[in-house]
Amino acid sequence: MTWEQWLDEQATAREAAGLTRRLQPRSADDPTIDLAGNDYLGLAGDPAVRQAAADAALTWGGGAGASRLVTGTLDLHDQLEHELADYLGQPSALVLSSGYAANLAVVTALADRSTHVISDAHIHASLVDAARLSRARLTVVPHSDVAAVRAALEVSTGSTASAGERALVLAESVYSVLGDAAPLADLADLCASYDALLVVDEAHGLGVHGPGLVARSGLAGHPHVVVTATLSKSLGSQGGAVLGPPALREHLVNRARPFIFDTALAPASTAAALAALGVLRARPELSDLVRERVRTLADALGVVTPDGAVLSIPMPSPQAAVTAQAAALADGVRVGCFRPPSVPDGISRLRATASAGIASADWDHAVAVLVTVAKEHQ
Amino acid sequence: MTWEQWLDEQATAREAAGLTRRLQPRSADDPTIDLAGNDYLGLAGDPAVRQAAADAALTWGGGAGASRLVTGTLDLHDQLEHELADYLGQPSALVLSSGYAANLAVVTALADRSTHVISDAHIHASLVDAARLSRARLTVVPHSDVAAVRAALEVSTGSTASAGERALVLAESVYSVLGDAAPLADLADLCASYDALLVVDEAHGLGVHGPGLVARSGLAGHPHVVVTATLSKSLGSQGGAVLGPPALREHLVNRARPFIFDTALAPASTAAALAALGVLRARPELSDLVRERVRTLADALGVVTPDGAVLSIPMPSPQAAVTAQAAALADGVRVGCFRPPSVPDGISRLRATASAGIASADWDHAVAVLVTVAKEHQ
Repeated sequence: MTWEQWLDEQATAREAAGLTRRLQPRSADDPTIDLAGNDYLGLAGDPAVRQAAADAALTWGGGAGASRLVTGTLDLHDQLEHELADYLGQPSALVLSSGYAANLAVVTALADRSTHVISDAHIHASLVDAARLSRARLTVVPHSDVAAVRAALEVSTGSTASAGERALVLAESVYSVLGDAAPLADLADLCASYDALLVVDEAHGLGVHGPGLVARSGLAGHPHVVVTATLSKSLGSQGGAVLGPPALREHLVNRARPFIFDTALAPASTAAALAALGVLRARPELSDLVRERVRTLADALGVVTPDGAVLSIPMPSPQAAVTAQAAALADGVRVGCFRPPSVPDGISRLRATASAGIASADWDHAVAVLVTVAKEHQ
Repeated sequence: MTWEQWLDEQATAREAAGLTRRLQPRSADDPTIDLAGNDYLGLAGDPAVRQAAADAALTWGGGAGASRLVTGTLDLHDQLEHELADYLGQPSALVLSSGYAANLAVVTALADRSTHVISDAHIHASLVDAARLSRARLTVVPHSDVAAVRAALEVSTGSTASAGERALVLAESVYSVLGDAAPLADLADLCASYDALLVVDEAHGLGVHGPGLVARSGLAGHPHVVVTATLSKSLGSQGGAVLGPPALREHLVNRARPFIFDTALAPASTAAALAALGVLRARPELSDLVRERVRTLADALGVVTPDGAVLSIPMPSPQAAVTAQAAALADGVRVGCFRPPSVPDGISRLRATASAGIASADWDHAVAVLVTVAKEHQ
């Protein structure tokens, strides 16, 4: 088969299954109320964040010009890493060009063929890819099932053929699709007793829960817990970070290929995240507001309040989900729509993000629209 | 072994081998002449590029707020993709958050267990990682050895057990370490006759050779050639792109996990790359200048002129390379230093980048310094 035929065959299959997705560019003055993105605190558009990004572009230029180990490390990166570590209560931080890269970096630099990676069934695609790329032995455990994690660790450290493997446990503080929090304290205890390392992705926890659920659970600085974060959700910018002990940071600097072989994060993005951290410190009420909003919306819809800022509204069918999404958009509210195969449980759903950045009147309108749309499509 | 012990052991081994690398933040007003980065045309600091990045941050905010398929696709991305495709002579382009992500995306979306990936021995780490992550069958062929590529393709399409595999050939237009160009026309012919697809990374070709060596070789739009590029070298920003037929772009939008599960490129970086493309179109003499400079430097040092903008100066030992690098820095010129194991042939070398962005007097000074330093350390 030629490549052209293969691409055509793939496209036809997608089309037949109704799964073709297309990019929809938006304009800067799009009036739609956005409940689909991940700008949980509205900081991407905060005046201080915009201005800091603009100033950095004028001062430092459009790009960092090199990878971090060559000449791409700017004072700005250094400042951001110190501020991030300080805010999250971690001893050190390393900034990368995306959350995807941060997850790839930490897992591939720590795990190899002699490592056992134990992964929650709901972890993000970037951690799945990271585990694959590391070539570690992989065990996927049922979602948030601490006993299953224990059983998997038992295999690594017990008196079996694979005894003495290093073990890495992968979790998210708040999972994306269902918005539920991980049993972090139990997982950390377990990792401590088995000499394993827990990697927690705070993509959906940072900001929504101030410094994140690792910090809120008293686990920041725990010797068996490291954190990854994204700068592109609550921090309104682009980029990712790995946080943990300085020995881990030094190891990543020397060994993490997704860090070493990548151009440094652009000055404007670095400064935007730094400014967003400043706003978040000065206005901790933003975290309270986003959680209050998600609670309000959940109550209005009669669904369980999630631990994150993203709320899932089950729909009876993929078709219902699509028409409900279109109905909300017609009323000026954009929400996400998830259908099989991109849902872990086969249930189609609308996905609505609460954000502290939406004006109060717009937020009230959005809640009313979603309540109506949900009622009509359930 | 605990994780702490393992990290400590790794650090000790690195230190003992003299291979520990540390980040050196630089300030915005660092007066050192930078011959270590990849800002080949000096566009990262171009006034129009800085201003475009700043304006985009003010207009659009610090980040795109979502992944591309959700609400992260801005008009800016659309514009950049059209301009990139047009400049490189390709039918379409897809922008990602880094060159690393672009390489990961194209290879993992095209290759799987039933694909044969044939990779040049000198390709970039991101393509190596991409091939690994794809789980394709991998054959690494000697550097720029067309006969070896043919022999590998013969295995895929011949009457062997693996007959009928789709085959992907990975190359760079200009290789990073040695600065030599790939035999693109021969590789493209070969791929055409074996129904294989050639993926060419233009990271070091774009800008230095105007629209890149694929375009200059008349191969843009060739049905068996696709291109990846970075926005962080000649285009002075951050990000990457995949260029090829619309069917490939649509496939990536629907299937490339490093694209789908990543926040869109930040507005400032998108606008910076777009502005840099405009400068490059308006001032094609920048490409001539960087190649003239690399020729001047190579002649002065008595080494062969590379096809890219990066020049390699062999050193008799790792120690000589380190002291030579320090001597150049003491005279105000920063160059890179590559030592085993990060060189493919075991030869330590200084690595000097010609850039059209360096002021003439500074460039002349840098050449003089490098000639003196090379003489004293060889």
